[in-house]
Formats: sequence, structure tokens, C-alpha cells
Amino acid sequence: MAHTLWNRKDLLGLEGLSRPEVEAILDLAAAFKKSAPDPKLKGRFLAFLFSEPSTRTRSAFETAALRLGAGVLGFSATTSSLAKGETLLDTVKNLEALGVSYIVARQETSGALDAVAPKTRASVLNAGDGRREHPTQALLDLFTLREKKGRLEGLKVVIVGDALHSRVARSNLYGLRTMGARVVFCGPSSLVPDAFARLGAKIERDLDAALPGADAVYCLRLQLERQKDNFFASLADYRAAYGLTARRLALAPEAVVMHGGPLNRGVEIDDAPADGPQSAILPMVENGVYVRMAAFSLIEDWRRRHDLA
Amino acid sequence: MAHTLWNRKDLLGLEGLSRPEVEAILDLAAAFKKSAPDPKLKGRFLAFLFSEPSTRTRSAFETAALRLGAGVLGFSATTSSLAKGETLLDTVKNLEALGVSYIVARQETSGALDAVAPKTRASVLNAGDGRREHPTQALLDLFTLREKKGRLEGLKVVIVGDALHSRVARSNLYGLRTMGARVVFCGPSSLVPDAFARLGAKIERDLDAALPGADAVYCLRLQLERQKDNFFASLADYRAAYGLTARRLALAPEAVVMHGGPLNRGVEIDDAPADGPQSAILPMVENGVYVRMAAFSLIEDWRRRHDLA
Amino acid sequence: MAHTLWNRKDLLGLEGLSRPEVEAILDLAAAFKKSAPDPKLKGRFLAFLFSEPSTRTRSAFETAALRLGAGVLGFSATTSSLAKGETLLDTVKNLEALGVSYIVARQETSGALDAVAPKTRASVLNAGDGRREHPTQALLDLFTLREKKGRLEGLKVVIVGDALHSRVARSNLYGLRTMGARVVFCGPSSLVPDAFARLGAKIERDLDAALPGADAVYCLRLQLERQKDNFFASLADYRAAYGLTARRLALAPEAVVMHGGPLNRGVEIDDAPADGPQSAILPMVENGVYVRMAAFSLIEDWRRRHDLA
Repeated sequence: MAHTLWNRKDLLGLEGLSRPEVEAILDLAAAFKKSAPDPKLKGRFLAFLFSEPSTRTRSAFETAALRLGAGVLGFSATTSSLAKGETLLDTVKNLEALGVSYIVARQETSGALDAVAPKTRASVLNAGDGRREHPTQALLDLFTLREKKGRLEGLKVVIVGDALHSRVARSNLYGLRTMGARVVFCGPSSLVPDAFARLGAKIERDLDAALPGADAVYCLRLQLERQKDNFFASLADYRAAYGLTARRLALAPEAVVMHGGPLNRGVEIDDAPADGPQSAILPMVENGVYVRMAAFSLIEDWRRRHDLA
Repeated sequence: MAHTLWNRKDLLGLEGLSRPEVEAILDLAAAFKKSAPDPKLKGRFLAFLFSEPSTRTRSAFETAALRLGAGVLGFSATTSSLAKGETLLDTVKNLEALGVSYIVARQETSGALDAVAPKTRASVLNAGDGRREHPTQALLDLFTLREKKGRLEGLKVVIVGDALHSRVARSNLYGLRTMGARVVFCGPSSLVPDAFARLGAKIERDLDAALPGADAVYCLRLQLERQKDNFFASLADYRAAYGLTARRLALAPEAVVMHGGPLNRGVEIDDAPADGPQSAILPMVENGVYVRMAAFSLIEDWRRRHDLA
Repeated sequence: MAHTLWNRKDLLGLEGLSRPEVEAILDLAAAFKKSAPDPKLKGRFLAFLFSEPSTRTRSAFETAALRLGAGVLGFSATTSSLAKGETLLDTVKNLEALGVSYIVARQETSGALDAVAPKTRASVLNAGDGRREHPTQALLDLFTLREKKGRLEGLKVVIVGDALHSRVARSNLYGLRTMGARVVFCGPSSLVPDAFARLGAKIERDLDAALPGADAVYCLRLQLERQKDNFFASLADYRAAYGLTARRLALAPEAVVMHGGPLNRGVEIDDAPADGPQSAILPMVENGVYVRMAAFSLIEDWRRRHDLA
């Protein structure tokens, strides 16, 4: 059974997850997509600890938890005691004391959760920590790509744009390599430093050269505020060099088009690739619910084996 | 049966709704007021998409949905990706992909939902779009007035105040005329332009002349910030000319006193009429729950007939 | 049975509650800690009316209500019609009209709820009003202290810090005296005025003199913004005189260490006492859920006896 492969209280990142662990999540998510699960989390409580706004990630975790029967607290960290100077650990320990079993956290500081998770009985699910990881986003990317292509092993995935600041890029790199795919980062040296090659990715500066033979093109969201820090000259220059246009996509006719949203239409991606037949952008959102249900379910099994309420 | 008369995925406005359609909602709401309904929306999810604050409208939709068994997402658009520049349509398509069946939306832009609703499988319920429509508010007004007077046909309804900026005024005008009532708008020409006569309302500048024979007086909330744009000279001047006082209400002894809230006490309405025996202000709030339950229920029937989850 | 002792619609403060009433709550909370209760609030709705941020209080009320089966509205007053100038009473009457049975309110104005509660059929639970009372906080403090010490009668409780601005200090004073405990306030005269002696507390300026023989040391949170109003000279001065350090706690080896959170670590309390074996800080948080469940349950019994839905 898938769940006997899972032996973790938390889901903090894909770095370090083994291939069987990743497959356990993807396979259980596929099962949940076929038929609705039991309300396995009935009587459990989930709290959000978000220091950044979020629509799809938070709502996807929330619908996943509600479908499994959990109670979801309306707590939002931005209007909470975090504002009063309490430490993150004290906030987490308080939620644990309130009887919260699952903490879904998005923090601006990379790695902030790694120090906290081992000190709480609650299970911590990372919904994005600074530039480091966003594991459930990458898992839904893997799930969708596997669904579209039938496999991950040997695929060529081109990730375009601001990899430097992107936790989505990092989590995908770890996950895709674990599953045997090849990753090409494409962008200017300001956004895709040469040092990324050390992480096991190929680096390509010319998007037209990167696209042929791609099984997927993953457009990273451009943080528009990076312009004033001179990471790129202008939106028009960025689009001219790295925007996914209809013309460019024709260079990769077999590629699945991916984007984690929200989209800057006309910047990193045009309408035609975003909404066309190669796009997996909305299926990714849907699959994000199943992947998170699978993560909750595997962790809940772990908790029961360890007698944690 | 009432629900076979309803053939719409969305509820965007009262303009264009037929009399049998309005009656279908009002009759079902009356049935729900007598006895609690089945949890017809169990397993369905509702999301709010509010770009303006709201207490009663949002809470009324929420209690209505919860009473029908729906799951309500804690998502609020003001802390969401709308802030990151995503289009309204992309946000809606994302909610649809997450499995949300009902989107209750309040948008500052008049008509913004009309362009979006036909492009999503989710049902969109307008909770106020700019100056255009606020259909469930008008439906609860119609419901309450019918309950108090036994009918709507032939009634004289005086709507006092800032009709120019009011979606409540517009939706009531459409709904009341559809149901055979006569509408009189009363206010200064800055707030009740002559052009409103073209929509089928009578215009009266003198409130004392408008009140005799009224079956209802509907006080519109005065947006206090209009003063600096010179829509009126001062609060004292406004109250002197258009405030509903005890003396004025004595001119309309059979009139139901209505206000959609929140009240500016001592401006558009005094305490005595607001809290007196002719007031229907709090019954309106209660009835708003039943009317919204009826809208959800009729739309859910429509969705099932069209095999939409 | 405990619940026949309770004869109140609301829980607004501990001042005026009798010893049997306090014991009714504590005893029922103890029963709920042993075994989960029935979903007694199923079909009831709860709304929050918070004009100040809160993590633990709000979440504790929310988990308590959810465990009892209530529906909890996502309404938050800060993004509501209170911002539009509506009176508190109108907001409350609107919630009542929506079918809300329980209103959990935190208001900046001391005593604001006392005027409102008698005018609504809804039950009002005070979650903190200005400097006046925070009754459920004091009840969880009493519960935890009784649990640790086996009794409250005759205990010596030292409350350290800014009693002047603290609703927690006032509610504890009322509750502890009702239960037969002795209260010592300790702090500078700017934060612990001599007038407090009239409320029945002993006043001690020297913490080292206050601690010997204490059964509990309750550290009040220092509002750091008080410094600019010269209530104390500096954080370092405050800590030197009134911070609970390991050295000081050694003067009270039998004392339970208490704090209502959030903690200013290194100011009013050091890590060692906060996290050491004498600390009851996290058990207090857990017990806060049971105490609030007990309050809801007793009030619900009252409501049923009075035929309030």
C-alpha cells in the first residue's frame, strides 16, 4: 500500500524525498481523482499561518481539507499575534495546544518552518517559504505532467524565467530530477545564475534554442517589482526574449504548457499558449486539490500509527 | 413546481427576470421560512469574491449556504491574487477548477460579472456590482413588502435619496415594476436625475408631496463622502429636505419603512421611524437568508438538470 | 447538575459571578476535558465581532464552537459595516436577525457590550472589552490553577506588571477573590496604582518581596508602546525590576508560572521560566478550549429553557 511508504510527520520540501515517496503521493492523488475519499480528517482541525496573500494555494488546501472532513479555522496570521511580535514557534505551539493537527504555512523567510516543525506535534505543510520550496505546487505539477505524458522518466522540462527568486522552480527541480526528468532553466543570467547548474539543471540563455524537443514548458511568474532592481530592462524586453508566444510554442509542439499562476498575460505568457490546447494551467489547479488530499491522507496515516490525535 | 420555472445558471440582476421567475424565488423563500430545507448543497463549495467590505450581505449568503449544507471557503478577494493583478476571469476559472460551484461576487465595476459568468461552469450570484444591480437585496425587499402588504401589484413605493449611485435603487426599480408596483424616486436632481424617469419611475422632488398614499418608504443610505463632491450641501441640509423623520412618516401611516443598511441614523432616517412599528428593517435582514436559500436551491436544481457538479 | 446553577444569557465579566456559577463552568470544563461532548450547538451560528486582532482567543472560541457542532461565520468586523459608521447595536441586531445565536465580541471600548447585550436575543460572550474584563481568559486561568494546585481557596497569586491597562488582571482579580484566593499586584505605581488596593488586592512594589510563598506568578504582557508614554523608562529597566527570571522564580519554587500570551520573551518573562517545569502557559491555551465549550454549553441550556433558538 502507498501509505506504508510514507514515514514523515511533515511535508516541508521535495529536496530529500525519495522516488517511492513522491510516487506514493501521486498514486494516491490519482485514486482520489477517480473516487471521493472517506472523511478521514473528521474531528481534526487545520489552521493557516500565512504571512503572504494567496488565492489558489490556500483555497486548494482548504477544499482538500474540507473534502476530507477537517475543521478549518478562519485564522489568518496577518491579523494575528504574529503582528504583536510573538515568535513563530510560540504561535505554532499555541495552535498545537488548541488542538490543531495540521498547520499549513506560508512564510516569507526561506527555511523558517524547518526549525519549527520538529518542535511541534502538529504536522506542518509548507505552502511556500521564501525562495526555498513550495512542495505541493511541484507535486501537482508532477501529477499533471505525468497525467498528460504517461510518465516523468526521461522527459525534457524547460523552466523559463525568474528561477532565482522562485520556490516553485526549486521544488520542481528537486522533484523532476528525483523522478528522472531532465530540467532546463532558461532566462537571463540575472534571473538564472550559472550557479544553478550545480543543482543539476542545464542552463540555456536562448528560449528558441531551449524549446525544440521539450515535453513541457513551465513559465514562471515574473515579479513585476523586480524591474526597478534591474533584474530586467523592461517588460517589453522581457517578453521579447522570454515570453511564451504562439510563435515560440510552435517550436515545441509536443510540450505541455504550465504556469503556477497568477498569470501576467502578455508578459511571461500570451493568451494563445495560456488558453490553447497544449495548456495544462487549469487542470493543474484542479489536480492541486487531489495532491493535497493525498498529502493530508498519508500524513494522517502516519499520525495514527504514532498515536497523535 | 416553482423550480421548473427557473432556467438560469446565474443570478446577475433583476432586469430581465420575468414575473414568474421572481415569484418562484419569493414563493420558495416563503416555504423555507416555514420549515428548514434539506441540506441540498452538501458537498458543494461556495467562494466569496468581494472587492468591497460587507457584513450583512456576506453573512446572509454564508448562513444561507451553511443551512443548505454547503462548504464555504474562507477566501477573501482583498487578500488574494486579485491584488497581484490577475484578471477577474482567471480568478473565477481558478475557483471553478478548485471545484467551487457557487461564486458570490461583489465588484466595484458595474457589469463586471456579466462578461465573466457565461465563461464559467460555476454559478455566479451578484452581491452588488458598482451602481448597477444588487438582485438579492431587491428580492428580500420584495419578499418583505409582499409579506407585510399581502401583494406587490399596485403598491406605491417611494424610494428616497441617492438613486444615482445606488444599485439597490436600480434592482428595486426593475423588480417592483416587474411585479406591478409603482415606483416614485424622491431626491434632489443631483442624486435623482430627470433621466431616471425613462426607466419607468415617477420623479418627485418634494418628500412631503411624495409620501401621502405610500405603501412603502425606502430610505437609501447616503454615502457621506458624496458631500465633498457637492451632491448635497451638508448633512443638515440633506436631513431637512430628505430625512425620514417621525413628522414625515405621519404623512404615510400605511407605509412600510425600509432601509438596506447600514443606517446613518439622524441623516437619511431618524431613530423613531427606524425602530418604530412601521419599520421592516430587521425583518428584511432575516428574510434575506430565506431569499438567498431559495436562489441557491433553484440554481442547484438547474445545475443538476444540466449535470453540473 | 452544574447547568441548573447557570441563569444568564450572556457572559460579560466575572465581576458579579457567584462562586457556584464559576464552579459550574470549571466543573463542566473538566468533564469536557475528560470526554468529548455531544454536538450540542448543531444548527446554531456563531459570529465574531472583533475590533482588535487576536489569535489564541478567537481560535479557541472557534475550535470550542466547532467541537460543539456550531456553524461559524467568517465575518470579521474590521472588514465590515462597523467601518461604515454603523452603531454596535445595529450590527448586533443585524446578526441576530440573520439567525446568529452566539456573538463573541472583542471591543476597544470598556463596557461597550454591557449596553448592547440586554437588547439582543443573541448571547454575547465578551472576549475582551478595553481595560475592563476578559472573562474566559480568567476562567481558563482559574481552571488551570485549580488543576495544578487542586484548589483555589487560600492560594496566593502574584500578578506582575501592567495591571492598569489589563482586562486580564481585572477579571482574574474578580474571579480569584470570588474563589477565595489572595491576589497580590506587583509593579511600579505608574502601572499598579494605589487605588487598586480598594478592589481587594494587596499591592507590593518589590517583586523579590512578593514572590516567597506564591502559589502562582502571573506575568502580564507589557504593551511595548507604553514606553513612549513614560509608564516605564526602558525595557531593560522594566526587566530588571519586574521581569520573571530564573533567579527570581527560585524565590517561589511552588509557584505555577502563568502568562496569557503573546509573550515578550526577555522582557516580562525569560525563556527559562516560560518553558520550564513550573510553566502552565501552554496548558492554559489547551484548557481555554474546554472552558469556552463549558460556557457555550451552559448558555445553550439556558437558551433552551427560555425557548431561544
